[in-house]
Amino acid sequence: MDFGAHLWLSRNSFGPVMGKIERKGQKMADVSAEVENGSQFLPRFDDKGLLTAIAVDSASRDILMVAFMDAQALAKTRETGLAHFHSRSRGKLWLKGETSGHFLKVQEMRVDCDQDALVMICEPQGPACHTGATSCFYRRVTETGLERIAD
Amino acid sequence: MDFGAHLWLSRNSFGPVMGKIERKGQKMADVSAEVENGSQFLPRFDDKGLLTAIAVDSASRDILMVAFMDAQALAKTRETGLAHFHSRSRGKLWLKGETSGHFLKVQEMRVDCDQDALVMICEPQGPACHTGATSCFYRRVTETGLERIAD
Repeated sequence: MDFGAHLWLSRNSFGPVMGKIERKGQKMADVSAEVENGSQFLPRFDDKGLLTAIAVDSASRDILMVAFMDAQALAKTRETGLAHFHSRSRGKLWLKGETSGHFLKVQEMRVDCDQDALVMICEPQGPACHTGATSCFYRRVTETGLERIAD
Repeated sequence: MDFGAHLWLSRNSFGPVMGKIERKGQKMADVSAEVENGSQFLPRFDDKGLLTAIAVDSASRDILMVAFMDAQALAKTRETGLAHFHSRSRGKLWLKGETSGHFLKVQEMRVDCDQDALVMICEPQGPACHTGATSCFYRRVTETGLERIAD
């Protein structure tokens, strides 16, 4: 597999990535202007060292999955161009597709206003869900429960 | 405003919504078949009582924002058809748009495989971001930092 496209991710300085800004008790209004409006990547990990990472299919635009990244998972994602997460249940680094081969090639990464969440625009190398579904969001919440809407 | 469309959300039984399934140390393989494949809505809140909720614009399909819901925020969202979250910084229920008027009308809600994350397909009543941007994800991560890509 050619993951050459990851270079834009890996050449970044990792200093700011490891930075952590105290936010306990902070209101949105107090969030620094640099975090919201600046051009520095200053990812804000929560008190467990995690941020939210959403994977979107670049072709279908479907949301494929959402999971958490710690600083290590973020660094590995940028270094390799393949989505890595921190598995909360297993307590360790998780390369998405490490067993299935269904990697998520990251084409573009976006960050939100307060830099505690990421969107990764991806080219999935297979179904994103461990159940075999294309997306983890294959059920709609209805009046009476859940309804399957996709494979 | 007519929020009549919320009825599909509010008529649900709230018993399962309040239910909490122990998952500490649980591996994905152990997650019950009912949670993954069933038709019961069994939202799984984490050890802080939260799950991840992603808002998507039904027209543009852009991801607007991501935040957290506790059981109360989820119940209020289903009851009113307007996205409610739990503000981690303020430690309380947060009706999105309560000060700005920029509510998110929820047209459809989807749940992921292990029922710890939701996607809400919304009709936004204004910019979703408190900065005035349409979406909170208005910056791309580049080699050297962040690049603004949307207003």
